[in-house]
Amino acid sequence: MTMKQRLIPAAALAAVLFAGAAWAEEPIKPIEPVKEINLAKAELGKKLFFDPRLSKSGFISCNSCHNLSMGGSDNLKTSIGHNWQKGPINAPTVLNSSLNFVQFWDGRAETLKAQAGGPIANPGEMAFTHEMAEGVVQSIPGYVTEFRLVFGDDKIDIERITAAIAEFEKTLVTPNSRFDKWLLGDANALTAQELAGYKLFKESGCVSCHYGASVGGGTFHKMGMVEEYKSTSPAEGRKAVTGKDEDRLMFKVPNLRNVELTYPYFHDGEAETLTEAVDIMGRLQLGKKLTEEQNAQIVAFLKSLTGEQPTFTLPILPPSSDKTPQPKPFED
Amino acid sequence: MTMKQRLIPAAALAAVLFAGAAWAEEPIKPIEPVKEINLAKAELGKKLFFDPRLSKSGFISCNSCHNLSMGGSDNLKTSIGHNWQKGPINAPTVLNSSLNFVQFWDGRAETLKAQAGGPIANPGEMAFTHEMAEGVVQSIPGYVTEFRLVFGDDKIDIERITAAIAEFEKTLVTPNSRFDKWLLGDANALTAQELAGYKLFKESGCVSCHYGASVGGGTFHKMGMVEEYKSTSPAEGRKAVTGKDEDRLMFKVPNLRNVELTYPYFHDGEAETLTEAVDIMGRLQLGKKLTEEQNAQIVAFLKSLTGEQPTFTLPILPPSSDKTPQPKPFED
Repeated sequence: MTMKQRLIPAAALAAVLFAGAAWAEEPIKPIEPVKEINLAKAELGKKLFFDPRLSKSGFISCNSCHNLSMGGSDNLKTSIGHNWQKGPINAPTVLNSSLNFVQFWDGRAETLKAQAGGPIANPGEMAFTHEMAEGVVQSIPGYVTEFRLVFGDDKIDIERITAAIAEFEKTLVTPNSRFDKWLLGDANALTAQELAGYKLFKESGCVSCHYGASVGGGTFHKMGMVEEYKSTSPAEGRKAVTGKDEDRLMFKVPNLRNVELTYPYFHDGEAETLTEAVDIMGRLQLGKKLTEEQNAQIVAFLKSLTGEQPTFTLPILPPSSDKTPQPKPFED
Repeated sequence: MTMKQRLIPAAALAAVLFAGAAWAEEPIKPIEPVKEINLAKAELGKKLFFDPRLSKSGFISCNSCHNLSMGGSDNLKTSIGHNWQKGPINAPTVLNSSLNFVQFWDGRAETLKAQAGGPIANPGEMAFTHEMAEGVVQSIPGYVTEFRLVFGDDKIDIERITAAIAEFEKTLVTPNSRFDKWLLGDANALTAQELAGYKLFKESGCVSCHYGASVGGGTFHKMGMVEEYKSTSPAEGRKAVTGKDEDRLMFKVPNLRNVELTYPYFHDGEAETLTEAVDIMGRLQLGKKLTEEQNAQIVAFLKSLTGEQPTFTLPILPPSSDKTPQPKPFED
């Protein structure tokens, strides 16, 4: 190699690399590592994410239903809320949620920040109010100084609380799955069965909804396009937001990253295994009855989407002060 | 210094240092750092400690009530169990529990291992059975290989599950509090108020129950020795174990390490602040009404007992398999 060859400008080199990238022709893209994070804000958000004092009971935190030990979900059909209320819907994973085009199954929040305020004030979930959550955080000296550090002044309100949580959630991406390694050029990262599954995933049409870096999360689609989906779930999907009948059972397409970890499946959590979920999706969305072998191939491919889980030190929460309002776990 | 002086045998040197240790005359001793830990077993135990699949609901883990983000406690008066049942007693901290002479408020478990099996099978707590917990762990491939690594063969039973949890719990000591730094010879580690509080703690008689490295946890004593303790709590204390009337309201003296973090206080959690707890202890146990200044001094001393909290990476739990029994959150 001559000196001249080595002096290609970086930008030009990047363009060449990108054009020649293994994934350029693929409908699924690698997850990009996190960029432009406000570290102090994310650290504060991590504490708030794990803090059950944002709930009326003092027992339920964001992490209770979006458990980062368990794929960012609770692995229950529907979640458990204040006073053990049965939630109406399966908790979507918080992992890679920054890649979703909107938040919640019905897309009623545009941003991570808007989403974070929802469960805190939902009577069926954390059952608090934004004002009470603000009062609790304001009463905790460790938070007071940390908000000053992050935001530069003394204001502590739900806007800043949820902004910090959202900043932490931006860090919860899971790059470097075996599938991504394959996309990035490691031809040996996938087995023959997984590759066959990916081929089938594309050819069968799964990829028309599940595409991009998050393998979903970019559009609304109807649950039960070819064949009706039967469920006792009260969830109406997008109709709850728009009021339009035609939006009934229109849900945000779930992203399939780490789907191996986020069982059970669908908005009602009624599919317990990936095998069951793939079979139902094939029939109801695509009008295709997959053979046992085809199903196993797609399941194998889906399991190759499990990425590096976010690893971090369990946060130590600043203690309450004598002025902190007491939690009320046994009030309705 | 001559070469001869430098060649004092290590054992002799240690004896000299110990005899001359700053804490040799003190009733409270520094917490020793952890020794002789089986690391792989503790890592497995950490996962199990955080795993809600050891409960019937799939929602409650050891960490739910012994939250390591919150001083190893839940900071609730009494804990929340399966189906939001109200527990009969305040959750003792798991921090430094290896230093307690027995476990539970009533001492009904001799060891950490025996304790760990209790909540799993308690209908008011995790509401599972040992057999069902074994079945769940046996069905999870990631656990199967990890048990083999740790124990050398394929057996997965409650004995091994609780042995691993206990090994993790042995790591949960909190050395290096400011008080311990003072004991270890750093004369500037405590403020004048904290030192005055410690002097008062000794002179008032608090130290007759709260002594040793764990500042308690070494004996049973009656709640309300001088003056009767009035409570609506159903907890009977040691009587529940021995059946003897004279053991009513005899409880294991709580260890006071990290007491700043383990509010609210007493077996019924009825004292919300340290100020209140110190006042009640003075009157009911010692027959002394402390002045406001004295109370503040003792509280300042108690806050100097907050040690280094265990820091570790949040464990990532191995996913369930298609054979894993489903959690049953909404069954009684």
